[in-house]
Amino acid sequence: MSKTPPPSAAGAVPPAEADGPSGQQQQRLQMADIARLAGVSTSTVSRALSGSKLVNDETRSRIMELARSLKYSINIGAQNLRLKQNRTVGVVVPYDSGTRQHLSDPFFLGMLGSLADALTEQGFDMLVTRVDAEQLDAAAAPFDSGRVIGVVLIGQWRHHEQLNQLAARHVPIVVWGAQLPQQLYCTIGGDNLAGGRLATAHLLAQGRRRIAFLGDIALPEVAQRHAGYCAALAEAGIGADPALCVAVSFLPEGGGLGVRELAARHAEYDAIFACSDLLAMTAINTLRQDGVAVPQRVAVVGYDDIELASYFHPPLSTVRQAIPAAGRALVAALLALVDGRPAPSQQLATELVVRASSTA
Amino acid sequence: MSKTPPPSAAGAVPPAEADGPSGQQQQRLQMADIARLAGVSTSTVSRALSGSKLVNDETRSRIMELARSLKYSINIGAQNLRLKQNRTVGVVVPYDSGTRQHLSDPFFLGMLGSLADALTEQGFDMLVTRVDAEQLDAAAAPFDSGRVIGVVLIGQWRHHEQLNQLAARHVPIVVWGAQLPQQLYCTIGGDNLAGGRLATAHLLAQGRRRIAFLGDIALPEVAQRHAGYCAALAEAGIGADPALCVAVSFLPEGGGLGVRELAARHAEYDAIFACSDLLAMTAINTLRQDGVAVPQRVAVVGYDDIELASYFHPPLSTVRQAIPAAGRALVAALLALVDGRPAPSQQLATELVVRASSTA
Repeated sequence: MSKTPPPSAAGAVPPAEADGPSGQQQQRLQMADIARLAGVSTSTVSRALSGSKLVNDETRSRIMELARSLKYSINIGAQNLRLKQNRTVGVVVPYDSGTRQHLSDPFFLGMLGSLADALTEQGFDMLVTRVDAEQLDAAAAPFDSGRVIGVVLIGQWRHHEQLNQLAARHVPIVVWGAQLPQQLYCTIGGDNLAGGRLATAHLLAQGRRRIAFLGDIALPEVAQRHAGYCAALAEAGIGADPALCVAVSFLPEGGGLGVRELAARHAEYDAIFACSDLLAMTAINTLRQDGVAVPQRVAVVGYDDIELASYFHPPLSTVRQAIPAAGRALVAALLALVDGRPAPSQQLATELVVRASSTA
Repeated sequence: MSKTPPPSAAGAVPPAEADGPSGQQQQRLQMADIARLAGVSTSTVSRALSGSKLVNDETRSRIMELARSLKYSINIGAQNLRLKQNRTVGVVVPYDSGTRQHLSDPFFLGMLGSLADALTEQGFDMLVTRVDAEQLDAAAAPFDSGRVIGVVLIGQWRHHEQLNQLAARHVPIVVWGAQLPQQLYCTIGGDNLAGGRLATAHLLAQGRRRIAFLGDIALPEVAQRHAGYCAALAEAGIGADPALCVAVSFLPEGGGLGVRELAARHAEYDAIFACSDLLAMTAINTLRQDGVAVPQRVAVVGYDDIELASYFHPPLSTVRQAIPAAGRALVAALLALVDGRPAPSQQLATELVVRASSTA
């Protein structure tokens, strides 16, 4: 068995794993496969692949073609063998292995729909995979196995480092989320800083001064929205009161828990800026149960502008994330990466949508 | 050139098309490929594959293995070569080519999330394809090209015949929708008749007598809900008044249009049974704009119990379709079909969820 792989790297060696044990194992496996299928010895295959003159031309070209075919079938996938082009994009939605949260969040589902539409427009299918957020390198599996040309990941969570590692090994990957320092991967995301600032400035303009913030600033996007919130308060000469900032998850019950926590802290507040529409809606429902009028006593602004925000009662003021544009932007960036073109990270403009929940 | 090429003729021999002209052409291609790669003549391959004694055992088994490998690599996809098993299920969501409606309907998105969760539980990925509802045979393309082991179709629409044709040519397919007469394909769906009856009987029990129906009975599921509505009215000795039945689409604006149409007809009504929660919500919002109190003057019941129904104001009474159970049932039925086991059509129980929108 030759120790140094042939220059043509005929084996099924995923580029980034060429030096790893599993890459070598695959190569050995495949050389034996080729030998068996070609009806020659492994050493003949080894010689042919290294271009040795000891193998006649016919046998060498036969082995090369076989090696190439097997490489295609393993690395690039079945359809490519005929179409020379894979028309499938991977979409990965990580799940939290602790809560194993179901994929029912309206914002994530809206993004999934938007991606399906954007990919259909471009003639692509979408391969959806859910991976454990703690083992995010599994997000590359559909690419490594050749089933997709690249991956869109929705849900940056706290996994900046793992995403950097994927990008470093040249997995074409585009992430919906916040731009962060020392970022190797491409992100497309809303302008969270501007979004937080817009929501807060609007509440200040309504005469509100004690604005509660609902969201978990350990998440990069939420941290940026919080920075915008603080900036708007500072511009109005108001300090951010930590007692008004409640770290709640994006689970639906978060809004109610946030309102309960504010009550437990005996916090006085006249407005809530919630980091998702779902949080805003469940906060409003809890306020209503407690007999607190929205927007009269507490004005509320959400985030996302999901389909149902405008149908809520009171119709929900919110920071719109342009979901249809997001799908198209993610797909365009991924196709650029796949083509070897640059795909700079982008922030999509966010827009304040004022409805009745914040205007008394 | 064959007149009707399969949408994705990528594969070698799709099982159901083995006898068609394109199947034969592909088979010839593949025999020549095998011959070239094995270093033998095409006639030797032909003899080996037909089990002829004229080919020695070693060569025959070599050719058989090669044929099998190429068939795998072309028909079943790359990963299978290693895993001997395809772990991808196709999910097709047809679109209406007229409206080219975006995939934003909360119920469809909820089903997509439920399928993603059910497939993740079983260790499968999900390949999402959108196809023109008028060309529903394209739904089989991911199966014909060997990328998926079978197809779940969400959105039966009016395409009973086309679905029967897919089933007749042994595409493993499970459809979310209503059971219909002369049905060759497997459907998993809610019990729409019971759902319509439950909603209507509940409104009757609240003392309502003039119950409007919002939904397009040209759609099989809606027709069954309407039959349940009529049955409940008949049990109460009330005839269904055609003036109270408004054919609206499932687009969000449908609820408002339904309320406007009832006004244009000068119809008197004290309740609405809407065939989706979105229709119910937009109907309620239009009633509110017109100063009509819900539920005091008009009680409203929706259908589906989407995530946001309970957060709506007033919280929406509705007929719950068990969306998480639906995803698991669709996946279980498809895996049965793929395994060659029977997959009888099923109706999942529906449940009335009474909230404030229908109880004065």
